Amino acid sequence: MELSDFTKRAGEWLSGEGPNSDVVISSRIRLARNLSEHLFLSRADERQKRLIAEEVSHALGAVGDTVELSQVDIDELDGIDRLLLLERHLISREHAFAKGARSVAFDAEETTSVMINEEDHLRQQVMRSGFQLEEAWQAMNRIDRQLEESLDFAFDDEYGYLTACPTNVGTGLRASVMLHLPALVMTRQIEKVFGAVTKINLAVRGLFGEGTQALGDFYQISNQRTLGLSEEEIVGNISSILPQIINFEEKVRRELLSSNREVLEDKVWRAFGTLSTARVISSKETMETLSLVRLGVTTRLIDHLEIHHVNELFLFTQPGHLQKVEGHVLESRERDTVRAKQVREYLEDLR
Amino acid sequence: MELSDFTKRAGEWLSGEGPNSDVVISSRIRLARNLSEHLFLSRADERQKRLIAEEVSHALGAVGDTVELSQVDIDELDGIDRLLLLERHLISREHAFAKGARSVAFDAEETTSVMINEEDHLRQQVMRSGFQLEEAWQAMNRIDRQLEESLDFAFDDEYGYLTACPTNVGTGLRASVMLHLPALVMTRQIEKVFGAVTKINLAVRGLFGEGTQALGDFYQISNQRTLGLSEEEIVGNISSILPQIINFEEKVRRELLSSNREVLEDKVWRAFGTLSTARVISSKETMETLSLVRLGVTTRLIDHLEIHHVNELFLFTQPGHLQKVEGHVLESRERDTVRAKQVREYLEDLR
Repeated sequence: MELSDFTKRAGEWLSGEGPNSDVVISSRIRLARNLSEHLFLSRADERQKRLIAEEVSHALGAVGDTVELSQVDIDELDGIDRLLLLERHLISREHAFAKGARSVAFDAEETTSVMINEEDHLRQQVMRSGFQLEEAWQAMNRIDRQLEESLDFAFDDEYGYLTACPTNVGTGLRASVMLHLPALVMTRQIEKVFGAVTKINLAVRGLFGEGTQALGDFYQISNQRTLGLSEEEIVGNISSILPQIINFEEKVRRELLSSNREVLEDKVWRAFGTLSTARVISSKETMETLSLVRLGVTTRLIDHLEIHHVNELFLFTQPGHLQKVEGHVLESRERDTVRAKQVREYLEDLR
Repeated sequence: MELSDFTKRAGEWLSGEGPNSDVVISSRIRLARNLSEHLFLSRADERQKRLIAEEVSHALGAVGDTVELSQVDIDELDGIDRLLLLERHLISREHAFAKGARSVAFDAEETTSVMINEEDHLRQQVMRSGFQLEEAWQAMNRIDRQLEESLDFAFDDEYGYLTACPTNVGTGLRASVMLHLPALVMTRQIEKVFGAVTKINLAVRGLFGEGTQALGDFYQISNQRTLGLSEEEIVGNISSILPQIINFEEKVRRELLSSNREVLEDKVWRAFGTLSTARVISSKETMETLSLVRLGVTTRLIDHLEIHHVNELFLFTQPGHLQKVEGHVLESRERDTVRAKQVREYLEDLR
């Protein structure tokens, strides 16, 4: 596994090939687990952390039948490579910039990853393209079961899986979907989605940007409760409300197309024009214009691009990826220039 | 002379081939003349106007050695064709939409035109690409001398040529240059030009838009006085101050290129991107973006276009030209769509 390959392709979860990829970027399941015979990490010293890492590494080798995982020692990576893993959602920000023995294991398709010694001893994750939360959960469950054959997870009969932070106790499960809702934002109906989602105790947050005005119209919906519900109930809760949100966004897109086609076409093509010609472009403007281009692609107003191209550009235009391509650290202003250049070249190749 | 050819090419004065075409779009000389044996037009009836038209027409045939002129009867044209002639600066707005016997004669290159029965019996004009005010005057003078051989112009020994409006009495000459000064506008130094120009009794006005904030950074400088100066003095006044303005604009362009190249490059290419992709674009935005693209072409930041392409687009995106291509009258909103389409196709052909 060469991290330099990361600059050439995105993980499977950005392939745009899963169900409802017009609205749902990806589905994700995360499980928090700890080894019963070791201290929680807040109390473990470096030697103990290394022992935990060794034990988990060994167990990960055993899941090789299901999925082939490569392990990367985070501490050995430079800042750019850490950012790279973070931007690909293979590790968390905390994991990237913490200290001490910690690693991540992931497969070539980047559908599965396991962080070792993040907040918990293990943070397992399965990602899938589009709306495949159930499938992601099944895959996650298989891996978790296999690991449980060789690892003794901290488990309490009353509380369930024990975790470093009480908000994860029970199932240790976080299920989430990443949504692209430009039409609902454009028509100021996104608040309705927030209302419906929070009413059933799900959390919704902008993926980029501050507060509810998400940059690029991307939102993540996830469960808040991990305790007192089965894994199937948690996944089912999100899965049951999602079709309504997808239908709502799709309906509004169709309405915009029929009543305001020219205005929409103008917006998405101008965004494409900006991305094709700018010499300096901020991360924020890139998000906003890519969001419009993605809307253009899914509505077929832009027909020479596919969803995965736009998804890839979201990834490739982030700081770690830009710097990886250039091979050295870039100041913020330099990144804006390099970002513009890389986007232009990417789009030029697709003409 | 088919007016439909007008949608395929611009007149010679927009060829971008004259001296200093990076800054000077064109040079223009206009002479107002009246026949001594006829009433001024404000007092002439339709029959007298027809007699004047016939007499001038006949005389124009005699200048055929110098320049071959075709005559067009304005009253026979529909609204689109009248706009077309107006946009090509072959006739004035008043001439286009007045009533009664009136016509215009012009050559295939559109360097020479003579309006018959506009405000004066004759309004002769010579246009040249770039800074060629002297050459335009020489050409104008030759034609005027030839006409004077067969026509008896109203002339007073004390006042000079007599005209319908006293502001034209004397030489009957208006000399003007059309300038593109984007760098001076961008760096807020355009006021210095206004100051210098008005101090020597020349008039400066934005070519499009209101007040001093000219749309697209286009300005026209012309003489105000027609009396008490010789033709050579009038032309010389403008010709003597023009090199300073040209040098000033060119110097600031070079400064922007050396100190702010990336910002400038970003601006001009984004403007190009907008023109290449917009589906709806107003006349105002077209002017502003074309102005930036013109700056990009003259500074070689955009190297696949030439000045004459941009000059042509300024012309082709005007309402008369848009409607001539489409073959029917267009509402304002429709024009914005057709304008966007025609610009896209024009630029696409040049890729």
